Amino acid sequence: MRQRNKPWAKEKLADYPQYVIGSPDQWKGKWHEVFEKKQPLHIEIGTGKGRFISGMAKANPMINYIGIELQDSVIVTALDRIIEEELPNVKLMNVDANNLPTFFEKGEVDRVYLNFSDPWPKTRHAKRRLTYKTFLEIYEDILVDQGEIHFKTDNQGLFEYSLTSFSEYGMLLKYVSLDLHTSNFEGNIMTEYEEKFSNKGNRIYRCEAQYR
Amino acid sequence: MRQRNKPWAKEKLADYPQYVIGSPDQWKGKWHEVFEKKQPLHIEIGTGKGRFISGMAKANPMINYIGIELQDSVIVTALDRIIEEELPNVKLMNVDANNLPTFFEKGEVDRVYLNFSDPWPKTRHAKRRLTYKTFLEIYEDILVDQGEIHFKTDNQGLFEYSLTSFSEYGMLLKYVSLDLHTSNFEGNIMTEYEEKFSNKGNRIYRCEAQYR
Repeated sequence: MRQRNKPWAKEKLADYPQYVIGSPDQWKGKWHEVFEKKQPLHIEIGTGKGRFISGMAKANPMINYIGIELQDSVIVTALDRIIEEELPNVKLMNVDANNLPTFFEKGEVDRVYLNFSDPWPKTRHAKRRLTYKTFLEIYEDILVDQGEIHFKTDNQGLFEYSLTSFSEYGMLLKYVSLDLHTSNFEGNIMTEYEEKFSNKGNRIYRCEAQYR
Repeated sequence: MRQRNKPWAKEKLADYPQYVIGSPDQWKGKWHEVFEKKQPLHIEIGTGKGRFISGMAKANPMINYIGIELQDSVIVTALDRIIEEELPNVKLMNVDANNLPTFFEKGEVDRVYLNFSDPWPKTRHAKRRLTYKTFLEIYEDILVDQGEIHFKTDNQGLFEYSLTSFSEYGMLLKYVSLDLHTSNFEGNIMTEYEEKFSNKGNRIYRCEAQYR
């Protein structure tokens, strides 16, 4: 996501330690202590401006959520949303997805969401796609057994690639929608991107892939 | 495929035993004897009017093809095409796909093509879809190890279903295209349906699934 630089972003994130976890490695193995309630933990990787993660947190109070986003100038908008809504079951982390096993014990995460991830369309950049096998290894490292990735995108190339990548990794495709907004899928929470690209007439693709 | 009744169809099929194999069970384990050359065998299940299978046979003389179609009133059109083109590497079978293991030895078939199969959209008819697990068992019964199914359709629901069915069966998705005619796939041979539905603006979906 290209954003204008916000030199004050880092400072603002540090001002809200109750929402933005400053040293996430200290919670490894005890993330339930960070939240009010001990309940399942779902994380979104590339949480952007946080519309999805805050919408999910509001809709599902029996789940704890962590939104992970590397760009501080983007995640501050997610922070604004969470401050305003005072949600007890959602936190943010301004970290790199490559380091997730530093922050979570094996089995500590119950589900991973990937929404409108950067497609990195050039073949030589395939390794950067969040559905590339090295990332699938990282998610497997922190997820429960038979954990699931729930993935949506409007990018046809990334979706085609990801279906084969999940399959090659040995994962089970449990659900595939090639046009989410005309499907019978209930309870969809739209991301900022999703609304924008859907309004342009783009299809939204979605699938659920389970480790086995 | 809905077709007008052609009471003369059965008789015409019987008049061309060099193209339409009358008692296919007699060739089980020795299909190479039916063809001029001993070379890989690819079959299409639901061959319709035969445009795909005859196009493939012409384009790939180093492969033997068998087009399988249950409806005699449809397969006679495929026969006309083959008579006209005098292709040595394509035969037809007017039989039910459920009986394939009666006609082929394990490992005798190198590839299965499914093109624009009946979508059977009602859930209670799922068992009739040619990508339902009982059919995947049948294809596995007759295919070589790590044999492949090459599948295309314009039916979104059937494609979504089939991706999950292949995956649930443990198959590897090697290639997925969500818009074949704008993809970089080379050498596509269109079926009658494909041309018709593509001209209407429908996307054509395609994938390759491999047993493992």
